[in-house]
Amino acid sequence: MPDAPVILHQDPRSGKCYKVRLVAAILGIPLKIIDYDGMQGETSTPQFRETINAHGVLPVLQVGERMLPESNSACCYLGEGSHLMPAKRINRADMLRWMFFEQINLEPNIATLRFWLQFIGRAHLTEQQTSQIMPKRIGGEEALDQMNAHLSGRDFFVGTRPTLADISLYAYTHLCEAGGFSLDDRPNIAAWLERVEALPGYIAMNDTAPGSG
Amino acid sequence: MPDAPVILHQDPRSGKCYKVRLVAAILGIPLKIIDYDGMQGETSTPQFRETINAHGVLPVLQVGERMLPESNSACCYLGEGSHLMPAKRINRADMLRWMFFEQINLEPNIATLRFWLQFIGRAHLTEQQTSQIMPKRIGGEEALDQMNAHLSGRDFFVGTRPTLADISLYAYTHLCEAGGFSLDDRPNIAAWLERVEALPGYIAMNDTAPGSG
Repeated sequence: MPDAPVILHQDPRSGKCYKVRLVAAILGIPLKIIDYDGMQGETSTPQFRETINAHGVLPVLQVGERMLPESNSACCYLGEGSHLMPAKRINRADMLRWMFFEQINLEPNIATLRFWLQFIGRAHLTEQQTSQIMPKRIGGEEALDQMNAHLSGRDFFVGTRPTLADISLYAYTHLCEAGGFSLDDRPNIAAWLERVEALPGYIAMNDTAPGSG
Repeated sequence: MPDAPVILHQDPRSGKCYKVRLVAAILGIPLKIIDYDGMQGETSTPQFRETINAHGVLPVLQVGERMLPESNSACCYLGEGSHLMPAKRINRADMLRWMFFEQINLEPNIATLRFWLQFIGRAHLTEQQTSQIMPKRIGGEEALDQMNAHLSGRDFFVGTRPTLADISLYAYTHLCEAGGFSLDDRPNIAAWLERVEALPGYIAMNDTAPGSG
């Protein structure tokens, strides 16, 4: 359990923010939720930058007076010492390996295409963004192929039990169709998504965790 | 100290690989080094993908029989329980926060521009790469500004002592001029680079750590 009461500053439509809510729900950690509308500039105001995150992005996990940006570091804070953190040192590092993979290979491709296509709309993209659709398509397909290959013969990404890496990767993978990706030829991913969804305490993206609000 | 002898599979020109060597040197952990020439395709061979890393990238930290890709997870593996890992839970998470920042905001901009401009050469870039110079320039300048602002009144990124976050951020920041960036107006970063370089055990990028080879 955390050292102090925790508040999640979030946008409910963001997969990165859902990731943190999902970890808290599975671990039974009560979260106070404060919502922002990132698309209306609520994370770019001088007040937000001064008091929540100088870099103007969500999520931010507030622990007492401390502000902790970055979704995966928030997951690690909440998950320390829990059953979502492997007991072996090499497996803890391997869990982080997949959380870095998520931010380097998955998120910039799948989450960005979801945001551009579902929230902004293709017709409203800048020329620069339009020129990035193809490389992000290729990068996202490659990341999903790598995940599908890794899951061959495995139930979860690291060791034999679910870890924070599974929760982190789940968030945007389960939204990949909104970015124009498909899991039809990726049966290992599809089966793994179901295993994550069967975890005790699991909440869907639009649900609110018990004890949260 | 690691559970088993460690081997670093690396390319000596890569800042990501240097990061792992620097952590090992500061902590006095002997590393066996195996070099690859990534630009000659040595990390894309079927044999490399089968035995070292299916994703075809370096560095990979080998611990006994286990292969651990991603530079920052290698740093975390080596640094666990050392003086480069904060004692407080919130500070450990904050250290990871800056290591994610490094991979999301610094590396894709500064390291990629360094690679394109110093190793490939502007005249040999594809049209797609050329169109990416400006957004990567803007992203890299913003990341350096954020680092400079955070270091105002601080000696290191987290708490009051050096952590893995400083080593991780140091690797490409100290190479930023090769990507066309400047530290002239970022005195806090310049002073922090000197503090990292004064750490006991520090090695420069082209040096070999004592006990390594």
